Amino acid sequence: MYTDACRLASAVWRMMSAGEEVRSVVLTGYGGYECLKVKPWPIQALGAGDVRVAVAICGVNFSDLYTRQGMLRELQPPLVLGTECVGEVTAVGAAVAHIKVGDHVLCYKFTGGLYRDHVVVAASHCFVLPPGMSYEDSAALPANYLTAYFCVHDIGHMRAGQSIFISSCAGGVGWAATQLACSAGDVTIFGTCSPEKHDAVRENGVTHPLTYDGYEQELLKHSPDGVDIIIDNMASSAFTINQRLLKPLGRIVVIGANSMVTDSQKFGWWSFLRLWWSTKNVSARDLIMQNRVVAGLHLGLLMERQPNTIQSAMSHLFQLYEQGKIKPHIDSIWPFDKVVEAMRLLAERKNVGKVLLRVETADK
Amino acid sequence: MYTDACRLASAVWRMMSAGEEVRSVVLTGYGGYECLKVKPWPIQALGAGDVRVAVAICGVNFSDLYTRQGMLRELQPPLVLGTECVGEVTAVGAAVAHIKVGDHVLCYKFTGGLYRDHVVVAASHCFVLPPGMSYEDSAALPANYLTAYFCVHDIGHMRAGQSIFISSCAGGVGWAATQLACSAGDVTIFGTCSPEKHDAVRENGVTHPLTYDGYEQELLKHSPDGVDIIIDNMASSAFTINQRLLKPLGRIVVIGANSMVTDSQKFGWWSFLRLWWSTKNVSARDLIMQNRVVAGLHLGLLMERQPNTIQSAMSHLFQLYEQGKIKPHIDSIWPFDKVVEAMRLLAERKNVGKVLLRVETADK
Repeated sequence: MYTDACRLASAVWRMMSAGEEVRSVVLTGYGGYECLKVKPWPIQALGAGDVRVAVAICGVNFSDLYTRQGMLRELQPPLVLGTECVGEVTAVGAAVAHIKVGDHVLCYKFTGGLYRDHVVVAASHCFVLPPGMSYEDSAALPANYLTAYFCVHDIGHMRAGQSIFISSCAGGVGWAATQLACSAGDVTIFGTCSPEKHDAVRENGVTHPLTYDGYEQELLKHSPDGVDIIIDNMASSAFTINQRLLKPLGRIVVIGANSMVTDSQKFGWWSFLRLWWSTKNVSARDLIMQNRVVAGLHLGLLMERQPNTIQSAMSHLFQLYEQGKIKPHIDSIWPFDKVVEAMRLLAERKNVGKVLLRVETADK
Repeated sequence: MYTDACRLASAVWRMMSAGEEVRSVVLTGYGGYECLKVKPWPIQALGAGDVRVAVAICGVNFSDLYTRQGMLRELQPPLVLGTECVGEVTAVGAAVAHIKVGDHVLCYKFTGGLYRDHVVVAASHCFVLPPGMSYEDSAALPANYLTAYFCVHDIGHMRAGQSIFISSCAGGVGWAATQLACSAGDVTIFGTCSPEKHDAVRENGVTHPLTYDGYEQELLKHSPDGVDIIIDNMASSAFTINQRLLKPLGRIVVIGANSMVTDSQKFGWWSFLRLWWSTKNVSARDLIMQNRVVAGLHLGLLMERQPNTIQSAMSHLFQLYEQGKIKPHIDSIWPFDKVVEAMRLLAERKNVGKVLLRVETADK
């Protein structure tokens, strides 16, 4: 049934479009992997504020899975998936001043559309790579490292001597947050993940790996006053427990999942979690009496409203990379045609580190 | 009736006490100014962790008024008023290492007890003054400048190029916050106060003085995206409006009044406001969707739980003072015996700047 719907939607879209087409990962309808097709798809014309990029590498994210499953209902298929890519600039619009043909650029667009041989993107969504930075490492930065950056350095304002608790420290954002916390100097890092990943996260800088069961008692045993910063990834309903692990003046940052933007009722566990979060409140009186700081972060919406803030954060990340203070961990790189296998690996959480797609075409 | 109650309470306390007495401002019962008596009152013996100080100057605060009115019910009269004083150390306990006899120290204790010729205070509540800092200026620092410091520099993390909105910018905390914001470099400062104080606050550094009516439209006219930091002094129910004046990643700090600690039902307007605040919640979803940071601050409770944090903030304030970046504004200095007149001035909001008491005794 899904397959039929996919075919129909795809045919309608093709009839409505005209002009140049490029190879793309097209989501032809909500559903399983059968709705993902690698095929030619229309590319928009270059606008005055746009940049055209010959794509080399794309980053695979959970948001691609959610989009495919229909959890982001404001995105209607058929559409091209992909929120991160990196490559070489082949054309720039008349109004673009700071990017030129031949530059290597990283692109981030939380509404997708970047899994293609060539992309046309607004210049505000592009970041010129520093010399010598590899495509592979840079493609791993936007979703994970920008999110972690705003948690640890901007809102968190982490300094040497402080402590942080990172939920899911073996995940993409958690991995990046661990490195960014270490970049502040001598810090104490608590993080939850499954026991078999404890060695890996310790290697990455987590000083106290914890398991999900009873982590709060374990943390308070080491640090009875609590910690200075907490990153809560909304993957559980532990928000209230986590707040109690904060020192006075401590700050907790809740990272918004894209799924919470929508009002889909389809997915059991997610739907429960979304409902829980939608009714979750913080009491102003508690904030005051506990000297507590509570923050929310949604990278995609932040980029829409404050592109300059994102640009300056990315510049800082590039500096930290050049200083050797951050280094993305790549799990695997898949040919573009193997996008289903790459997404499946992520969905089954079999990866440790970033999953990438490599675009290899004759015309570049 | 109040006077009778005061006399009785005072007599009972005197009968229970013994030993040395020093001249003190004693609150003999809840009520009007008639419950304030300047008279000899027992002083505690010097403990191992204590410091004894010959007091020179005391700072007068709203918390003294609230205590007198019975809004802080956990403080039971008879008691000695006063949360700030400064003077010369005359004795130190055996366990005190960093303070010596002859040092000039500033003392802060949010539960009171400092309006006296001599005080015995825990060393953790004392700050050794830098050479050359006057008693008058230093006595104006704790309540106002420490509170403003945590809002602007710690939680706010204010940097050059940013903007701040300070509610009641002509008040003690607002005045200090204006100077601390200016110390960050080139900043934009919005603040509300009555129109007749606009010239004074502009002189102090407020770039856009606003009136209380319709300030939000006026602010957004100058700064359509909102501001980076907001200091909300809980003096009104504008918390929800104020949050909408925040930029993405902007932070709002709500300063807790001591009155909210209590459950007194006696005072109409305060009682309403306390009720309003006690039910006030921040939605986790809003925090995320708006990329917003919401914080609460209660200086007294912070000092109880994290004295070292307060010590290091005060050191930074002393540095800023020596660099000429902050300078308390003194409204008037009253003899110790005129404490009623000094408190009345504050209660009627006739002061601009800090109101102080001077202790002048023959034995110093």
